[in-house]
Formats: sequence, structure tokens, C-alpha cells
Amino acid sequence: MQKLLYGVAYYDEYMPYERLEEDIRMMKEAGINVVRIAESTWSTHEPQNGVFDFTSVDRVLDAMHQAGIQVIVGTPTYAVPTWMVKEHPEVLAETAKGPGRYGARQIMDITNKTYLFYAERIIRKLIGHVKDHPAIIGYQTDNETKHYDTAGANVQFQFVKYMRDRFQTLDEVNRKFGLDYWSNRINSWEDFPSVVGTINGSLGAEFAKFQRGLVTRFLAWQADLVREYKKPEQFVTQNFDFEWRGYSYGIQPSVDHFRAAEAFDIAGVDIYHPSQDKLTGIEISFGGDIARSLKGRNYLVLETQAQAFPDWTPYPGQLRQLAFSHLASGANMVAYWHWHSIHNSFETYWKGLLSHDFLPNPIYNEAKTIGKSFEELGEHLIDLHKRNDVAIMISNEALTAMEWFKLPGGKSYNDVVRWIYDELYKLNVACDFVPDGRENLNDYRLIIVPALYAASDETLERLNEFVQSGGHVLYTFKSGFADEHVKVRTTVQPGILHEAAGITYSVFVEPSNVQLRGSPSFDASADDPQVHTWMELVSPTTAEVVAYYNHPHWGQYAAITSNTYGKGKATYVACMTSAKIINRVLERTVREAGLWGIDQQAAFPLIVKSGINKQGRSVRYYFNYSNEPTTLLYSHGPARELLHDEPVDAGQELALEPWGVRIVLEA
Amino acid sequence: MQKLLYGVAYYDEYMPYERLEEDIRMMKEAGINVVRIAESTWSTHEPQNGVFDFTSVDRVLDAMHQAGIQVIVGTPTYAVPTWMVKEHPEVLAETAKGPGRYGARQIMDITNKTYLFYAERIIRKLIGHVKDHPAIIGYQTDNETKHYDTAGANVQFQFVKYMRDRFQTLDEVNRKFGLDYWSNRINSWEDFPSVVGTINGSLGAEFAKFQRGLVTRFLAWQADLVREYKKPEQFVTQNFDFEWRGYSYGIQPSVDHFRAAEAFDIAGVDIYHPSQDKLTGIEISFGGDIARSLKGRNYLVLETQAQAFPDWTPYPGQLRQLAFSHLASGANMVAYWHWHSIHNSFETYWKGLLSHDFLPNPIYNEAKTIGKSFEELGEHLIDLHKRNDVAIMISNEALTAMEWFKLPGGKSYNDVVRWIYDELYKLNVACDFVPDGRENLNDYRLIIVPALYAASDETLERLNEFVQSGGHVLYTFKSGFADEHVKVRTTVQPGILHEAAGITYSVFVEPSNVQLRGSPSFDASADDPQVHTWMELVSPTTAEVVAYYNHPHWGQYAAITSNTYGKGKATYVACMTSAKIINRVLERTVREAGLWGIDQQAAFPLIVKSGINKQGRSVRYYFNYSNEPTTLLYSHGPARELLHDEPVDAGQELALEPWGVRIVLEA
Amino acid sequence: MQKLLYGVAYYDEYMPYERLEEDIRMMKEAGINVVRIAESTWSTHEPQNGVFDFTSVDRVLDAMHQAGIQVIVGTPTYAVPTWMVKEHPEVLAETAKGPGRYGARQIMDITNKTYLFYAERIIRKLIGHVKDHPAIIGYQTDNETKHYDTAGANVQFQFVKYMRDRFQTLDEVNRKFGLDYWSNRINSWEDFPSVVGTINGSLGAEFAKFQRGLVTRFLAWQADLVREYKKPEQFVTQNFDFEWRGYSYGIQPSVDHFRAAEAFDIAGVDIYHPSQDKLTGIEISFGGDIARSLKGRNYLVLETQAQAFPDWTPYPGQLRQLAFSHLASGANMVAYWHWHSIHNSFETYWKGLLSHDFLPNPIYNEAKTIGKSFEELGEHLIDLHKRNDVAIMISNEALTAMEWFKLPGGKSYNDVVRWIYDELYKLNVACDFVPDGRENLNDYRLIIVPALYAASDETLERLNEFVQSGGHVLYTFKSGFADEHVKVRTTVQPGILHEAAGITYSVFVEPSNVQLRGSPSFDASADDPQVHTWMELVSPTTAEVVAYYNHPHWGQYAAITSNTYGKGKATYVACMTSAKIINRVLERTVREAGLWGIDQQAAFPLIVKSGINKQGRSVRYYFNYSNEPTTLLYSHGPARELLHDEPVDAGQELALEPWGVRIVLEA
Repeated sequence: MQKLLYGVAYYDEYMPYERLEEDIRMMKEAGINVVRIAESTWSTHEPQNGVFDFTSVDRVLDAMHQAGIQVIVGTPTYAVPTWMVKEHPEVLAETAKGPGRYGARQIMDITNKTYLFYAERIIRKLIGHVKDHPAIIGYQTDNETKHYDTAGANVQFQFVKYMRDRFQTLDEVNRKFGLDYWSNRINSWEDFPSVVGTINGSLGAEFAKFQRGLVTRFLAWQADLVREYKKPEQFVTQNFDFEWRGYSYGIQPSVDHFRAAEAFDIAGVDIYHPSQDKLTGIEISFGGDIARSLKGRNYLVLETQAQAFPDWTPYPGQLRQLAFSHLASGANMVAYWHWHSIHNSFETYWKGLLSHDFLPNPIYNEAKTIGKSFEELGEHLIDLHKRNDVAIMISNEALTAMEWFKLPGGKSYNDVVRWIYDELYKLNVACDFVPDGRENLNDYRLIIVPALYAASDETLERLNEFVQSGGHVLYTFKSGFADEHVKVRTTVQPGILHEAAGITYSVFVEPSNVQLRGSPSFDASADDPQVHTWMELVSPTTAEVVAYYNHPHWGQYAAITSNTYGKGKATYVACMTSAKIINRVLERTVREAGLWGIDQQAAFPLIVKSGINKQGRSVRYYFNYSNEPTTLLYSHGPARELLHDEPVDAGQELALEPWGVRIVLEA
Repeated sequence: MQKLLYGVAYYDEYMPYERLEEDIRMMKEAGINVVRIAESTWSTHEPQNGVFDFTSVDRVLDAMHQAGIQVIVGTPTYAVPTWMVKEHPEVLAETAKGPGRYGARQIMDITNKTYLFYAERIIRKLIGHVKDHPAIIGYQTDNETKHYDTAGANVQFQFVKYMRDRFQTLDEVNRKFGLDYWSNRINSWEDFPSVVGTINGSLGAEFAKFQRGLVTRFLAWQADLVREYKKPEQFVTQNFDFEWRGYSYGIQPSVDHFRAAEAFDIAGVDIYHPSQDKLTGIEISFGGDIARSLKGRNYLVLETQAQAFPDWTPYPGQLRQLAFSHLASGANMVAYWHWHSIHNSFETYWKGLLSHDFLPNPIYNEAKTIGKSFEELGEHLIDLHKRNDVAIMISNEALTAMEWFKLPGGKSYNDVVRWIYDELYKLNVACDFVPDGRENLNDYRLIIVPALYAASDETLERLNEFVQSGGHVLYTFKSGFADEHVKVRTTVQPGILHEAAGITYSVFVEPSNVQLRGSPSFDASADDPQVHTWMELVSPTTAEVVAYYNHPHWGQYAAITSNTYGKGKATYVACMTSAKIINRVLERTVREAGLWGIDQQAAFPLIVKSGINKQGRSVRYYFNYSNEPTTLLYSHGPARELLHDEPVDAGQELALEPWGVRIVLEA
Repeated sequence: MQKLLYGVAYYDEYMPYERLEEDIRMMKEAGINVVRIAESTWSTHEPQNGVFDFTSVDRVLDAMHQAGIQVIVGTPTYAVPTWMVKEHPEVLAETAKGPGRYGARQIMDITNKTYLFYAERIIRKLIGHVKDHPAIIGYQTDNETKHYDTAGANVQFQFVKYMRDRFQTLDEVNRKFGLDYWSNRINSWEDFPSVVGTINGSLGAEFAKFQRGLVTRFLAWQADLVREYKKPEQFVTQNFDFEWRGYSYGIQPSVDHFRAAEAFDIAGVDIYHPSQDKLTGIEISFGGDIARSLKGRNYLVLETQAQAFPDWTPYPGQLRQLAFSHLASGANMVAYWHWHSIHNSFETYWKGLLSHDFLPNPIYNEAKTIGKSFEELGEHLIDLHKRNDVAIMISNEALTAMEWFKLPGGKSYNDVVRWIYDELYKLNVACDFVPDGRENLNDYRLIIVPALYAASDETLERLNEFVQSGGHVLYTFKSGFADEHVKVRTTVQPGILHEAAGITYSVFVEPSNVQLRGSPSFDASADDPQVHTWMELVSPTTAEVVAYYNHPHWGQYAAITSNTYGKGKATYVACMTSAKIINRVLERTVREAGLWGIDQQAAFPLIVKSGINKQGRSVRYYFNYSNEPTTLLYSHGPARELLHDEPVDAGQELALEPWGVRIVLEA
């Protein structure tokens, strides 16, 4: 990357009147140096089957180039044109809810050969058409691609073949998936029923995995097509998104991000989050840590919010804070979705940098200061390198499995992941994410394993070995419970993990009026000791008990244990607790792993993020995620605060205004 | 109208045993002088395709006539017989939820030609059969007609033709509806996709408007059919109903009442409302004001509740109060749905004047006093003429648009309308309703415009002119925002209205912990100053700020403004407030318009309604909508209280019992 | 029955590895003497159409027999194999929600002839194969059989024939079902519409009754098949279940238990219930009283919970208490569902006696003490005979009718039944259940009739006669309201019952801020006098008023009345009250009936159950359903406490530990 990218999505096609020149003028004024175009405009570029019109692309490319603004061109395949659906209704995905219906985007069967034929043609036409344009720095394939629950007869057909490839015989399938249960046994491949109605969680989870594989394959196919045209210095990226709970909440259920990212040069993501008084920076950090971990290097924030929803309109200072928050997690690009505000259709209230009136407004005005800082400070801030000792192990398979077997209260995998992640963030402990299949864990000193419900023997044994050879692991409840086919292990629980954890259990209950009871090494009486959602009745074998349950009948069982195993240590949290309690358990574990440092002197809402820049110098970001001004005691070596351009020394207090940011570059 | 009509719906067909003579005896005893028959009994009158049997109609007409009870005959078309659906399943409306299913009423496609063929035949047969019967005073077409979400292929086909007629070219459609977005562009009429799945709010809203047009056309067609048979002195009416939220809540989304009413001689409505402790009279007043405004004259309450639901059974006195409440809004008829209580099927718990046992009961006994009063006082009370200075401007298009773009918390157009209307009612300010398309506004001195989200330039300019030439307008947030195609205006907000309002805004937020901060001219500290649901960050250009927001970040923006423009004044309320605050804003505006009068000395639960009777004398109704007795200071000229038949003079106190009513006829 | 049966469901087919020998060893250790096999494993026993494999059945039968464990063999018909659905998709039930989908159990059309052909074949093959095996004590047909809402065209076709048989003419149907309403009239059998969409509650209720008849017929057909093979000393049973609200809550809506039970030798049921702090024993008593009443003798608990759900895992002592609770209601068998915990698929978290690790655990260890007690004390406890003076009259028809016409708040028939039953249980008043069609009521002295909404004249007249000849009846609101076709009676309410009840009403309301106001004979001021859900405005004719309503407008009406009629007495409760109030009304009524005895000195959480054993001696169970230890004053004759094997005399205090049980055998 040559420079920090500050961008917007720009759809000339959506403009109510001729705006291009004026838009570019305003973009320049705001320091916008990249735009993202074309990804949802198939019906404009191919108004009729085989009739192509790239006028709007050409004119935008030319005008941007002339203005010195770079362009990322997207393939327009995630929203199909009307004529395609009229001519070939079968391109719409059939799901468990029935046949598809035209209207929204992301409604097609990404395995349908007719769709793929047209998609290939428009990609080749568009990319072939623009490939020599000097404005283009890279391409994006499709957008927020998922499998859209495609599950029609053709997908079922592919799935049966996949099952035969993977398991060879039905005896193996019947055994591994426990299909005798409720007479679900399949004794002939012809009998294989549609999995749409299955009640077998193992089969359902395998189908979800197969569906994620369809996404990986589809994206790799698009990336390969684009690579036939792109120049070596141009990148191909994908805009990955996260589990959506009204904002970017957690691990994406429908895509294996690590697998899918393999086809791309650089990871791209979109990150949306609550704002105003609810702004914490957590989603930016969470999404950024995922994105950075996907390819082990910097990433692009292809979409994030400018004004967006009425409850997200940023307070003064927040837009600026957000931009630097992304950089602090390793982003090399921050782009808004999108430039203006759409005047009708569907996302009219998802406002861009400009309001519907296209006039300067307080948010746009704030963007100008960001663009200026990006330009001025970019050389120090770009390509931030982060080396973390802590990793969180995540798993799409565990996520899916816990969708089949929900925690009480409807809680699911991402609730556990975020319960952990949020407190780690608040402690200012930086972390990476690793997929459960990762072979080499030795880069890390502490691995946190939330609810690894479904996992192979290899994964669990690797974790045991990691501890034995000196690593620290913190497991939560549910980890190790089932194998990779979501079949509960027939051994003592927590399965293979019980070795390193030094505990066993066979009974678990839903807590009702249960608290934690501490131990000499852990005071559980303060900080909301209520246990909720889930508790396993753990008996230590070799582990030390950190906390017991406080309950007339379950009081003899352990809630939190810690076990020395080989040269390392394994902590096991057998229940869900308050944020405060898991915060303190994390603190305890981080301290035991010898990772408690200067940055841990501060805590949320004062957030510290750091890394090494291209010049090999430490860059430290300090954020105040609150409405109250605060100060920070700077405790590192002599440095310069970049935003105020002033020297900083160890022991100095730095003032942080509400929703403020400071960037300190060590000398 | 010759006399006040006091009526019931009567279904001889539903009777479990021979009751006619006894029913008529009991009706006469209660003063019932009109019955409404036949509207849901097609399967009885045409038991088989082409076999007709009007026995039950004939015998009721004869018996009623003999007893001196008049009859309104309904066309039976809103519930289709079993044989029709078996022979022609396609008469059932196909909706977004799928094909229709026999069982309920109002399930047919009102554009289906087979249905229309049979409907025409039964109408001609029935009306032709009874047309000379002297008992009949008028006809009702169908009942509570709506479009039933009909959206099958045939309706889609008509819609495409309608679009072509209306917009001529697809380029125009694509541009005005913003169909480039998400690749929704239509480039050939053949490609026009079913709108059932559309995500384009403009297209969806146009379809809703088209569907309302189907209702207008269907009703006009029926009215024309009936007119071929009816005598000059007989009327044709329609029973319009309102947005249903368990009771008659607001503007009807599925029918353009003003357009549809054009085909009829007199407007009819049904009005249902909470009762017991929750009785306020608001729905009676609201529905009555709409009904009266439809044709600018008196109307019929074709249905209202007698006992109805277990939570509506009226307290002693309430049934009587309700009857006069209808008259006080301009009704010339009050009819119960229905006479007896149905013994099974579906509406068994929607009880009539009689319970299932057909015996006199407390409600029936109270009806007797009403019938007597109607008879005795009718000459004074009939044809009440009301001349209001205040109007509320309403719009089906704004309503639909706000269904597509809901306010936070799921609030919609009618929530804003009722937020305004309820407080106007409580201030005893009488008003009319005008549709947004109305050209002449000069009958009024104050026009209140709630959330006129989608409106044409002409409408908005007309409002500006109204102010300029001396009128007062009160706008709420969202007004003027989008054009008539639900496309947000590209100009500064509130669009064209900003001229008369003297304000601009481009950012709006969902309030969280925001209050109003008053001005010298408006004390906002009392009366629950919390702002909720929506707030626009308004900057005045020429307007005076009546109230600001109280918030650390939005405190510089205006919440309520007032602007002198030409000879008039425009008030703009940029946020949703408590009932108390909007009540005071309305009071302020009514005072400014010079409309604050004697009736405003009283306020809810003491309600005043008035008008001029046929003899040109003022009639004033006073209602006590509470469980507590109260008194009223009479401040008009010498008069006579009709219910107690006693003289009343200015300065005299009139006692009102709980749920009581007084009717004062000025000398 | 030779001995108390202590059992588990056992599915060799579901085992993840070879366990049979070890399982049997562990079963023997726990005193398990019976297993239930085969009922959901069709796809294992008939892996392909016409290919049979009973290996798993044979080996379990042989091994169990060798170990002295008896076996109940189930027909495997409630879950169809994959091949059947692939070959004959039409075997799946089509319901109001659409066509069936493969996956779950209980998804077939039990009237489909293809399904019946295969079901007959597998039954004949399986039972024919095992019929001579000495391990077998009995057979179970199918499992938890219901009609699964089957309502496809073929079922509709049968229903029309059923209607013609039952009512002869459509005139009769139209009249009795009130089909004129909303034009639902059917004038030709060909026109008969699918009832799936009907809004006519009478027609809908008749269809539900017809569907229940399908279940009765299907089960009788299966029982007959099994009888062709079974030996005289073997039984045929069915596992009936209850309305499921996350546990066994109330009367089963989809099966007429009394009718269906006629085909069986002994009734079987499954009973599941909340546990831990929420354990009350009510569901065990309720389900047991139903089961015992079905055939007027002892019954089998074919399924109940061991560990089950995380919120049900029993506290120490609870599993033991539960086992004896079943015996105390008349069970001769207590069996857990199921032995182990299933490792995947669907019911993974419905845990058995063993956890997934198959190791001994606290619950299994507790089972060992139960097995021992059953063995040692069985001769005293088996075949407990109960002779009750109190009965509750129940009705599937009333239940269905109240589904069509729900009480406010969505409350339904079973809410009323349980409101009554729970308090009767807490008063330690033992009762039977009688179906509303029962001719002879003279076995009882008090009959309680909750919400008998739909009932024939005969039933109501029989209740009047019962009172007249000296019986006591307690009715609740809604009783007598409609006839057997769910048509509200046209007479004064409560219909025919008004004679014995000595009251009338025609108006009913939903109470809002209404309390009871007592009378000299009933102090309603204490004990939460709030009235909720429903209240009828009752006027006594000859009845004494026990309590009035306390309300400004309804205060003159009676809420609870009592009437002497002939030699008996009828109490009428016209509203829903707090638990405490109905408890006291029940006490009052039980006292009046002369049934207040020694057992009523104790009350919940101290529960007493008793009966006469085979030797003619009284057996009394005392349970402490609480976390607190308590004592009981023993007031019967000299006896022996069996669990502690110690003598007990009148006046002696017996200690009961938390969740404890005592069994006293009178000398």
C-alpha cells in the first residue's frame, strides 16, 4: 500500500441529477483519495441480456483519475438484473422457506450454472473493459457474499455427492451422524432425504459446512477470473462481513473467513457498530482483529458508517475517533458507505457522509479533518505491524453446532465469544484470532478458547500439547464436548481437554440463583458473582479450584479451575458469569502468562492500541470512549504526539477530550 | 334525512330459531327505527350457482315495513359462497403470502372477472328484486371494502399497464423510482418483476396506491349498478372503516376514503373503540370528523358497538353517552353491530344489543332511553352543521411511505396523526380533515400537517401560499421530506416547506435521553419534556426558536420553531414529544391563530361539541368522559338543556354525572 | 402385574460402541428390571423396502432375558424410514401449514393407505419374529400417537363422508353449525370446502373431533394386530402423553384418551415436569390421576425424566422422591427416558440416567437406592387401589372449543383445569377424572366441572340430576355455555346448569381492577382477592351469594354462588381468581360435601397420597416437596414406616428431610 486510503463508496448510477464534478470537488476537499464503485449495478451495466453499457463506470474512472482519486472496481454480481430472473427464474435460491422471490439483492443460488454463466460474462466484460485504466488500484469480487441458504434440489444433489466423497459409505455416515435415531438411517444413496427438514444436528451442521464451502469456491472462482485481467500491482479483495445483530456482532456463520480469504491478496471487511453514547470501539477492534488475522497483515475497511442510522449519527469528534480506531487495529483503508444518502428504495435511512441535500454538514466537515490527518500522518501510520502474544481460537463448526444446540435463553456461540472478547478489549490486551484448525500455535503464549463445542481430536490434542510445552490456555464451558461431527464425546468431559485442564464433569445444569464462591486465590464476593445461562458441575482431578458454586445442592462443584500441565497452565471456566467476573479471570490468566504490562494500567473507556510502523518505530493510539474528558499517564519512552505535534515523555499526563484520540510515535 | 336513525344490523339468516316478530317487538320498544340487512349472506340468497332465494330478505322487509322500521339493504358481495370457490378457485386473491384459502370473508380478488360476473348478477338480482319495496331508505354496497392485498399475476399485469399509462417510459420509471439501486432497473416492459418482493419503497408505495385505486373503482362500479335500480329519494352509501388496532385507530391504509366516497350519496362508517375506564370519545370524534369531511356533510354510523367484547361492555350510562357523541360529531344515524349476539362461528364474542339469550339486559334497557331521546329530540339534533376553522391535512401516500420507512419503535403515520388529534380533541378544538391534494384551503385559518412525508411540489407550495396569505400552519417532523414518489428531496430539508417554516436541517437522530429546553415564549421544563422517537437537528433561517433540545451534543439545534411568513405563521415541531407538550404547542398555535374561545375553558375529560341545527340554532353537547361527577360553567347565551328539559343561562353551572351528557339548545 | 417395574428405554441401535453387556451389568446394579425397546427404529429394522433385520432386537431380548430383565417391545411405526418417503412422498401428512417435510418423527398421515400397508407389514414381521421370546412382558403400539394435524385432500374427503354419516343432510349441518354466517353455507356436498381455512369454530371443532377419532381408530388397529400374536399373559399398552408446555401440562388436545384407551389392556403414559426448586409433584399426580382413571386401575409410567434438561437435573433426593410419587398415584412401573444420553441428532440435551460418558454419576447412584427399595418393598406397594369420592369432569370438546374462543390473555381450557387441580392437590384431596360423556356419576360425592364450555344437553342434565339426588358439584365460569356443536345456547346462561346452580347471567366482562367482596360465609378480603381473565355478571335466582364483585359498576353481581338443589348442592365460580381464593372455595366445597378428613390437616408442600394394597392394608405416602426439612403428625392407626423400617403410632411425629418421602403401611 502506498498511502493510507480514505474512501467512500460511490454510485454515479444512483445520483438523482448530474453531480460528478461537484462530488469530486467535495471529495477532494475532504481528503477522499479512493472510491469504491460498481458492485451492485448489474442492471445498469447490462440493461438487457448481452447488451453492455459501461458509460457510468468509464466516466467515473476518468473523472476520478483526473482528480487523483483512486478506484476500486467491484464485480456487480451480488444483485441480479430483472431480465435474468424473468428469463431464468431458477437462478433464485430455493431455501428452507421456499422458492426465491425477486426484489432484494443476494437472493440467487450461487451454484446455479445459468447464474454463473451470466456472472462470468459480466465480470469478463467489465474487468476486460476497464483493466487498463490507470485509476484502478484494485478489485473487489461480489460483496458480502454468503450462501443465502441455498438448498434446492440441485444443491441437495451436490451435497449428496459431497457426502459420498467425504465419507465413502453410508454405514460411515449413519455411524458418524447417529442416523439410527428417530429412524433417520439412510441405507441407499437414492434415499438421501433433503436436509432442509432434518432434525439431526450433525447432518445439519455438515450441510452448513458444505454451504460455507460453496462460498469459498464461488469467491475463489471470481478471484481467478479477475486475476486473468488485473495488473500485478492491483489487488483483489473481498468485502467480508460479520454476524449481523443490527450491527457487526460476531463471527460470520455463513462463511469460513479464513478459508475464503485464501483466494485474495488482501482482506477487506465492513464494520458497523452502535454509536453516540453506545460507542465503545469494540466492534472496530473485534472486526479489525479478525480481518488482520485472516492473512496475518493489514486490511481494508471497505465499508463503515458515516451518519448511517438516526441512532448512530456520530457526536462531534466520534467520526474522527472512529477513523483512527480502524488504523489502530491495522487497517490501511477506511471507507464510508457511502458518499451521499440514497434518496429512495430501501436504505434511505442508512445515511452517507453527505445527507440527501448533498450540502456540507457537520459530519462531512469533520471528515475533512480526518482526510487532512491521513494525508499528513500517513507515512507514520500506514502498514502498522502488530505482534500479539494472545490469541482467541474460533470455529465456524462450533458456532453452527451451538445454533443446533442453543444455550438457555437462546444464547449462542458469538455470545460467548463476545463475553470474552469485550473484557479482553477493556483490559487493553491485544489479541489475534486463530481458526481451530491452525497447526502452529507456538507464536502465542496465551490462547483463549471460548465454547469450542465441536472440534476434532487433533485440535484438542494440539491444545493439550500447547499447554504441556509451556503455553497458557483459558477454556470456557462447552469446549471439547463434541467431536467434529457434533457428536458428543463418549469419554469423560471435557473430552480430550480434561487432561490439560485436570478436571472432569458429567452433569451440567442451568443455574438459577447460583453465585460463585471464591477461593484464597480469587475473591468472587464482589463484582456481581451471579452465575447464569450454563454451569457444568466440575470435579477437579489435578486442578486447583479457583471458584466454587455457591448453592445448597451444587456447592461442592468447581466453577473455575486452574491446572498446571507440563510447563504450562490451563484455566477452565465452567459457567457463564458477569462481565466483571470474567474480566477478573482474564486479568488473572494474563498475569499468570506473564503478559500484564504497561498498557494494562489503563482500562476502558481509556483504550490503548499499538504496533510498529514501517520505520520500525512504535506507534501508540490512546482513545477516550466516553463523554467525559480524561487524562492518561504516558509511561513509555520519549515520543511525539502526532495530532497535536508535540513532544511527550514518560511520566507525562496526556489530556483526552470526550471521544478524543492521541497518537504517540516513539522516538 | 327525515329523522335521526337509530339502528341495528339484523341477520334473519343467522337466527337459531324463528324470532322475527319478537325481535321487531323488542326493537320497537327500544326505539330502533332502521335495520341494515343482507350484506354477508350471499350463500343464503344464491345457494347454488344461478339459484336465487330472497325469502329472508322479503320477509324482513315486509315485517319491518309493517312495523314502521326502515331498512338499508346491502349488496352481499364481500363474502363469497362455497360453490363459487369450488367452481372457480381463482376468485380468491393471491397475496404476498400465497394463494387464498376459503373460510373468511374478504378473501377474493376484487378485479377477478369471474367474481365480478357473479357479483354483478347477485346485485342485479337482489336490488332488482327489492327495488320497489317501501321499507327501503337506502343501499349499502359491499362492506368495509378493501383490496385484501390482491397481488396475483393478473393484478401485476394490470399494474404494469397502469405504470405504462402513468409514466409512459421505463426510463421515467427507473429515474423517478430510483431503480438502479441494487440492480432493480427494468429495461424492458417484459422484465417487469412482480412487485410482491420489491424492496423499493417508491415502487411498493405506487403499488399500494394502485391497489387503493382498485377499491375506488370497485365501489364506484357497485354504486353505479345500484343506481340503475334505486329511487331518487333512496341513498347509496358505503361502510368505510379505519386502521384497525383492535379498534378504529387511524387513517385507513388500504382505501383512499376521499376518492372512494365520491361515488356515494352519503358517507357511512363503522367506529369501534375501547370502553369502560378506557372510554375517551376520541375515536368517535376522530372517525366522525373524517366521515363528515369526506363529503362535507352529515354521515351515517352504520356500525358501532353495543356490548361487543368482554373488555368493552359499557358501564351504565356509557351506551347513552356514546350515541350522543356520534350525533355531536355530525352523525345522523347510530347503528349497532348487531342486534343479537351470534351463537357460533367466529364473532361469537362480539356481542350485540341482545346477549345470546335474546332477553332484555342492562344494555338493551339503556338503548330504550336512547331511542326515546332520539325520537323526542331528533328535530333539534338532526343535520347538525359544523363549520370549523381548523383542519388536519392527511395523506394515504404519506401513510404508505411511512410504512416503508417506519419511525423508530415501529411507530408509523397514524401514531403521529393521533398524537396530534388526541390533544386537539382534549383542548375542545373542533376540526375537519382535508386530503393533501385539496386545492382550496382558504376555508380554514389553521391547518395542521402531521408527518406529510410524501407529497408533491404543488401540495407543499399550496401550503406555503396559504401561510403567505395569512393562514397558520403547524407542521410536524418528516413533513415535506420526500416527493410524491417517496423519493427524498435533494434540496435542503424540510423541502419546499422550509420557505414558510424558515428553517433547514440535514441531520436527524433518534433521541436518547434528550429533553426540550424552552425559550422565553415557551416553558418546556414542566409537563414531561422528554423527546422521543425522532428529532431533526433544525437550524432556523428566519424562524424564532420556540424550544431547543437539551443535550450535550445536540443542544444548539431547534426542536420547535415559529416563523412569520407573509401574513401568516408557520410552526414546525421537529421531534415527537409527550402528549402534554404537544398539547401546549397546539394551544399556543390555536391562540396565535386567534381561535382560542369559550369552549377552550373546558378540557378533557369534559368535552364540548357544537354545531348549528336545521333551525339555525346552536346546539352544544357537553360530555363527561370519566367516572367522577363534574360541573360545567355554561358561558353562552340563554338556552334550554334538552335532556332534562330545563332552561340554562350564561354563568350557570351544569352538573354532569359520570359518563354523562348534556345537550344545550341556544334560544 | 407380578412386581413393581423399574425400567429404562434402551436403544441398542443408538449406541456409539458395543455396550450391551456393560449396560446390563449397570442396570442390574441399579435394580432395573424392565427395558422398553424398538419403538423408533424402523429404519434399522427395515433398512430397505421389504428387507428386515431384527438383529438388535434379538440380541437385546436374549441378553436381557439372560440377565432376568423383562422387555416391552414397541411397534416402530411413529418414525418412518427414509426409503418410504422417497418412494412414497404422499405418506407425509399435509397440514394447514402445507405439505410435510422429511426429518422429524410423527410427520406421517396416519390414514394414508401406503403408510398403513408398510406399518402393518413391519408390525407383523417384528411381533411375529419376537412373539415367543420369554423376555417379553408386553407390547407398546407406536408412541405418543397423535393425528399430527393431518388435513390433506384425502383426509378432507373422509371428513365429508363422516359429516354425511353423522348429520345426513347439509341443511342439518348448516343449521347446527351456523354456516349462514359470512356466507359459509354449503348447499351441495361437492361444495364442501377444505376446513383448513375455516373460521367457523363449530366446524373446526368437529374436524378436531374427527381427527381425534382417527387416532382412536389407528391405535385400535395396531392393538388388534399385536393381539394376533401376543400371549394371554402379555399386555398391550400405549404411551399416552399430555398437552405439552415444555412439560406435561394438561389434557391432551389431539387424543381422546378415554376412547383411545379402550383398545388397551393397561394404560401407559409419559410424564415430564419441572424439577429442582420448581418440583411440586403436581404433574406426576395429575398425569397419574388421568392414567389411572382411563381404565379405572393401575398404570405404567413408560417414560419420565432422569436427568433430562439442564434446568431439570434433579437435586439429591429428588429422583427417589419422584419414583415413589408415581407409585403413590397408582403406577406399577416407573421407567426413565432413557438409559443413556443420546450423543447427537436432536435430543442430545434430554439426558438419561447415564450421562454421555456412560459412567456412574450422582443420579445413577440414587437410582440404585430406588431399585433396591422397589425390590424390597414391592409386595406392599404394587397394585395400589384408590377409591376417590371426588372427580374432575373433563372434555376434549370443551378444550377444543376454548381453543377457538380463547380466554383473554390467551388462556385456555387447561389453564382452568390446572387452576383447579393444583389447589385440590395442595389440599391433599385425592381425585379421579371422568369424561363428560360418563353416564354413571354416582360413584362420586363431589364432581368438579372446570369450564365445560361445550357439552350436550344430556351431560348437563345428568349433572343436574346428580345434584338433585344428593351430589355436590362445583362449576367454573364458561360451563354449560355452548352445546356439543360449540353453538352458544339460546337460553339464559349458564344454560341447562342454571337450574341446579340457581343463577342466571347474560353479560360477562374482562375484569380490570375488580376484586371479590365476601359474604358472611366467606371472607374474601385476605388472600389476594383480585379477579382476573374472566367474570360473568351473575344474578342469583335461588342461590346464596358466597362472594360479590367489588367494583363501582359491577358490584351488584355475584362472583361465587352456592345453591341447594334437591338433596345436593351446586357451587358456581363465575370468575377466575387467585390460587389462594380458589383453594379456599375448594376447601369450602369439600367440607360441605363432608369430605374434609385427616389428610387435609397437612397441605402442600407436605403431600399425602394413599390407597389400599393387595393385602387390603392402607399404604400412606408422605412427601416433602421443599428444600426445608419438616415434620408430619401421623394421625392414623398403628403402622410401620417402610423406608426406615420402623413402627409408627397415631400422634407420632415423622421427620421429612428436604425432598423426602415416608411410606407408612397400616397394620
